[in-house]
Amino acid sequence: METRPPTTSVIRFAQRESGSFEAERRVPEEVPIALSYAGTTHAVMMASPADLRDFALGFSLTEGIIASPAEIDTIEVEEAGAGIDIQIRLKDSANTRFQARRRRLAGPVGCGLCGIESIDEAMRSIPAVEARMTLSPQQIADAVAALSRRQPLHRETGAVHAAGLYSPANGVVCAREDVGRHNALDKLAGALAGVEIAGATGAVIVTSRVSVEMVQKTAAIGAGFIIAVSAPTALAIRAADGAGLTLVALVRGTEFDVFTHPHRVEIDKGASQPLAKQREAT
Amino acid sequence: METRPPTTSVIRFAQRESGSFEAERRVPEEVPIALSYAGTTHAVMMASPADLRDFALGFSLTEGIIASPAEIDTIEVEEAGAGIDIQIRLKDSANTRFQARRRRLAGPVGCGLCGIESIDEAMRSIPAVEARMTLSPQQIADAVAALSRRQPLHRETGAVHAAGLYSPANGVVCAREDVGRHNALDKLAGALAGVEIAGATGAVIVTSRVSVEMVQKTAAIGAGFIIAVSAPTALAIRAADGAGLTLVALVRGTEFDVFTHPHRVEIDKGASQPLAKQREAT
Repeated sequence: METRPPTTSVIRFAQRESGSFEAERRVPEEVPIALSYAGTTHAVMMASPADLRDFALGFSLTEGIIASPAEIDTIEVEEAGAGIDIQIRLKDSANTRFQARRRRLAGPVGCGLCGIESIDEAMRSIPAVEARMTLSPQQIADAVAALSRRQPLHRETGAVHAAGLYSPANGVVCAREDVGRHNALDKLAGALAGVEIAGATGAVIVTSRVSVEMVQKTAAIGAGFIIAVSAPTALAIRAADGAGLTLVALVRGTEFDVFTHPHRVEIDKGASQPLAKQREAT
Repeated sequence: METRPPTTSVIRFAQRESGSFEAERRVPEEVPIALSYAGTTHAVMMASPADLRDFALGFSLTEGIIASPAEIDTIEVEEAGAGIDIQIRLKDSANTRFQARRRRLAGPVGCGLCGIESIDEAMRSIPAVEARMTLSPQQIADAVAALSRRQPLHRETGAVHAAGLYSPANGVVCAREDVGRHNALDKLAGALAGVEIAGATGAVIVTSRVSVEMVQKTAAIGAGFIIAVSAPTALAIRAADGAGLTLVALVRGTEFDVFTHPHRVEIDKGASQPLAKQREAT
């Protein structure tokens, strides 16, 4: 099942200079989605109730629970009270690995890890990116413009994030939307894996800011680029630098900032030096 | 300790119509912050490393772990590898309650709840809001404008959210910033509790979109309003409606939309009917 619509209409008072009136507006749905492995919940995310099989597959991949889609046995999407429960059954090898990780993480009083263990889990290392693709400023502008044409939920509501994969030859080959920016990226990862499009053939484009988790997920997808409309955090920059990922942000047409590994961007670097190791002035 | 600065400088390539150049830009830090109760971690959030005692107090209040600041014995902020661990010791009554909740939630294989239990935990009921304050359109515009003057980290980086409490008599009486919008609201909740400002004396103003969690936290603060620069989700609207909270969003000067309980907004509703029970198409 995937029967819940991802947006709905509400009536609100619109206060305008010209007066106030009652009118409809479309708003995005937001539903608690449980991701359950081997019968118990691993995480609950507030997400758009769409593309849920992509979400389950993509989350499993970008969080390192599986190494390939072949490690998933079944995905079942079930209504569960106020939310939706996605039951994921892993094949033997992946399940053994997952259960071992869960036992290792589970402390004696239930969910409790000590602070350092929990922080280390959040800061897991990122595989190095191998992708060799390069992009020109015009292609970066085209990629962001093309993604904006693939956002039907955002067009309705003005309140939804998107993630897409852009390739110079084919434009935006896949795009997904969600009320959460991390979920949109997971859904993209799952959709790409489902149709066997390799992340290394394109650049990940996102409509949001870039957190470290967005960098981790982009590296798991295998793309050489994360290109964002908004700004990155310092930790996202360090993670992209370490993973060999080109982080482009604050894109406005052909104007943008390149924070890491600018060798993939075909710009006239003129007399300026290659982007040095991140210098930091506290 | 709270020694890490919340922003830092990086060097990036700026690609502009007039040419490209290397230059500094300020970006926000993003640090894994563990919140630990009785020695084990309850949650890890990626957050700005500032106002961490406010964060611990506010999160404890808005997540219902404590009913009042008096239930906290000590808060210790400690460097922990790549992140920061906040160790919170609860007084006896609160600790007994918290441990019972933790035992109830901990399944036989560690963190595992079934999907329905996890979803119910995410959708916990919200206390009804009692606040009687009303605001005019001009005051709503003033509140958002005043918050924008209390965002030093955002002014530096363009990439940080803020939450503030506005009262008609005193303007924005308190404001906090964070890379995460939920964290900014938790820090506001903690800061208000720390100086014993009742949430019911003001309106919560946020620079972001409104999710259901933002509504839950605003209701826990006790304010009658959540006023947001961006749009709400459908679930946030339903939650605000159920809790008696006035949800104002999409504020542009004195123009805005009122999604729930418009009786607190002093607008000329003219010939239009009071905002009916949320009608939903589809």
